[in-house]
Amino acid sequence: MPNIDDVLGDIDLNFENTVAKLLELIAIPSISSEPSGEADIARAADWLKHELDAIDLPAEIVATKGHPVVLARSMATSNAEHPRLLFYGHYDVQPVGDPAQWTHAPFEPRVIEEDGVHRFYGRGSSDSKSQLWTFIEALRAWRAVHGEFPAHVTVLLEGEEECGSPSLPDFIESRRSDLECDVAFICDAEMWSPSQPAITTQLKGLVHERVTIFAPNPDLHSGHYGAVAANPIRILSTILAGLHDEKGKVTIEGFYEGIDDIPQSVREQWAELAKERSLIGDVDLTGGVAEEGYSSLEAMWGRPTVDINGITGGNQGPGERSVLPGSATSRLSFRLVAGQKPETIRQRFRSHVEARLPQGCKVEFEGSGGSSAVVLSQDSRFLKASSRGLEGEWGTPAVLRGTGGAIPLVEQFSRNLRAECVVIGFILPGDAIHAPDERYDTKRLRKGVRSWVRIFEQIRRTQGADCGG
Amino acid sequence: MPNIDDVLGDIDLNFENTVAKLLELIAIPSISSEPSGEADIARAADWLKHELDAIDLPAEIVATKGHPVVLARSMATSNAEHPRLLFYGHYDVQPVGDPAQWTHAPFEPRVIEEDGVHRFYGRGSSDSKSQLWTFIEALRAWRAVHGEFPAHVTVLLEGEEECGSPSLPDFIESRRSDLECDVAFICDAEMWSPSQPAITTQLKGLVHERVTIFAPNPDLHSGHYGAVAANPIRILSTILAGLHDEKGKVTIEGFYEGIDDIPQSVREQWAELAKERSLIGDVDLTGGVAEEGYSSLEAMWGRPTVDINGITGGNQGPGERSVLPGSATSRLSFRLVAGQKPETIRQRFRSHVEARLPQGCKVEFEGSGGSSAVVLSQDSRFLKASSRGLEGEWGTPAVLRGTGGAIPLVEQFSRNLRAECVVIGFILPGDAIHAPDERYDTKRLRKGVRSWVRIFEQIRRTQGADCGG
Repeated sequence: MPNIDDVLGDIDLNFENTVAKLLELIAIPSISSEPSGEADIARAADWLKHELDAIDLPAEIVATKGHPVVLARSMATSNAEHPRLLFYGHYDVQPVGDPAQWTHAPFEPRVIEEDGVHRFYGRGSSDSKSQLWTFIEALRAWRAVHGEFPAHVTVLLEGEEECGSPSLPDFIESRRSDLECDVAFICDAEMWSPSQPAITTQLKGLVHERVTIFAPNPDLHSGHYGAVAANPIRILSTILAGLHDEKGKVTIEGFYEGIDDIPQSVREQWAELAKERSLIGDVDLTGGVAEEGYSSLEAMWGRPTVDINGITGGNQGPGERSVLPGSATSRLSFRLVAGQKPETIRQRFRSHVEARLPQGCKVEFEGSGGSSAVVLSQDSRFLKASSRGLEGEWGTPAVLRGTGGAIPLVEQFSRNLRAECVVIGFILPGDAIHAPDERYDTKRLRKGVRSWVRIFEQIRRTQGADCGG
Repeated sequence: MPNIDDVLGDIDLNFENTVAKLLELIAIPSISSEPSGEADIARAADWLKHELDAIDLPAEIVATKGHPVVLARSMATSNAEHPRLLFYGHYDVQPVGDPAQWTHAPFEPRVIEEDGVHRFYGRGSSDSKSQLWTFIEALRAWRAVHGEFPAHVTVLLEGEEECGSPSLPDFIESRRSDLECDVAFICDAEMWSPSQPAITTQLKGLVHERVTIFAPNPDLHSGHYGAVAANPIRILSTILAGLHDEKGKVTIEGFYEGIDDIPQSVREQWAELAKERSLIGDVDLTGGVAEEGYSSLEAMWGRPTVDINGITGGNQGPGERSVLPGSATSRLSFRLVAGQKPETIRQRFRSHVEARLPQGCKVEFEGSGGSSAVVLSQDSRFLKASSRGLEGEWGTPAVLRGTGGAIPLVEQFSRNLRAECVVIGFILPGDAIHAPDERYDTKRLRKGVRSWVRIFEQIRRTQGADCGG
């Protein structure tokens, strides 16, 4: 029987091809939240189906109300007692933003050596095309060497993660029996540091919301009416400026209702983590206002927030225009912790704005859905096997961490399918996800693939023990 | 000798052609503040030179550092004692803004009957192509009937009014002797109501300024860093929200320094005006915050203001993007009254922002120049002749009014050339200047042209009186 080194050897042998394939995928601009991305989303789904079919994971492209899900399932393995593993990744990417801010073209990835690191740039290179590629490549290699997969395998690749997974609940409901599993591995998360792996056990929920303030008049000449007529930018600025008090607390009534403070044991665990490394990589926190009474890490992982993601109003052109605009818009997102319901937070925000709207002005809100926060058990055998597998590859224990990020699927799976979830990933703060010049590197890609192989091996051993083998 | 009715008759006879020509001019997108407007600015200048040449006002296109000035001067008249009249208008227009907000295409004007009014829509239709067309057409008709102009005539058509007239001071300095005149008629102002003409005797100054706040980091993932890192939109919003106190006063230190309060006599004069009609036409002031202690009219005409004309930051795309942006920008304009210097106000604003900038953040400002406020004498014989001429056409006395608008040339002329200025115009609040669906109508165009003829006649009579004729 082949051993793990044979599989790791196969990965190294095929690595050039692994990278080349991944760059093909990154080159597809599969932006899920812009209508122009639709054809490329379909192209990315086709590409993935082709790759999964080729490694004996027959895939189907499942249409949804939004973008399709790529769903692949293995044939039966030699051992019916094998556990059922589900792997989740998403193939859609964030919009590019202002292309002028990118040094590297967002959809023309190639490997560049920079200070000894073999890096590639591109939207989706770290979030999350490299991530899903780690487990697909690990499954390929395992099967190539062993002749079968390490378990019953389901692969679920979503095309709407970056726009809040609106079709996911219906998809899960309609394919419930196909998705049943002993553990869902969610590969869309961060490492702890470039040298230390992590398993994420606490995720925030997410609500997106747009708010547009309308003055009683359409655009006016600001010289004539600026002194007396309502200015929606001024009104919107005042509302946004008032969302936090001087202690960094959110002023929306009832915003913190129903949540428990971070338990002392967790605070202590996180304080230990915060000692070990700079939590935030190269990010400069000067000028930021964390909620008073909480460390940076506690604020990021354990406290709910409201963030202003965009604002637009009045003159956007290259020249000056003395205009008092008719409207102004802001996009916001709320990051929720356990105890907060997305719809309640949305309604409380809307009431907050309405209560501050000057007479005669109107407000329009846009936004729906959202996800709740999740706190996962640290006790499961799959989490423990994963932890051992990661430690085997990286030579240092995996940190059990929180995140400010949200993965709507984790909530769906743990709540609706009651499946155990293990959230693992290989990205880092310096990868510029959601930002210009998003990047990844080949070293982490290789070690990411190898990590999964070691996790499979640990699960096999556990399984072997269960069977008395 | 022909009398005034002959000239008015000629205007009516030629009116169809007058309108057709004007629509040709409005169809040229001569946007001065956007680089893409350059070719059309040149086209509009050529068009005007051609028209002026054709009515025996030989014109030259004078290059400047920015957009050209069209300058035309009449040959000597039969009477060397005739006064020297200068007419000012501007042929450049504001940017269109969001084209989706226009019901009518901004550069495809045609006359439409709406509730008995013959209206035409287009950027520049009221500000200020119809305006300059009133005096050109009046000069044409007078000369056609009389065989010569009513006076020594200079026509100055500027191409940079909508971007703050940056080249005007140099132009005036270099052509000082060509511009000498007894009176400069500035035709870029409002009537008092659809039935009552006005002469504007008090104008505000104007300063444009852009401010960009930079966080210490480029774009970040807002889920990961929103709780702790600086958000430039939040910082900018807070600064903008704090520019006014709860009484509507500008909080910039020294903003009101050096200005006198509105004299009691002027307040009484304006209070009388405010009684006569709704000052602000169809504009709804609900939700606006005028400076406490001042009527709407006093705030608009007699008090300095700061207006937010635009704001941009973070996600501008159609989809959601969980981004903590690296920067956010706002465009502002300051409307000054007598006693305020543009450069001082600019510097005070910059100091105000810098004092409120969180540690680690940076700010960049963009903006230069600007104009001071002007208060014109109400005593001149040309103003009185104009007043009689306007009353003759409209059947009701001309109101002596102020404005929140700025015409940089008035300051330049009254200060540098020490020329008397008379500011007359035929636009109305409902014309949507600087806004979508800017409009004008043929009735006002015809009465505007006729008004000038009556003003010429009044000046001729004065002149006649001076000469004992």
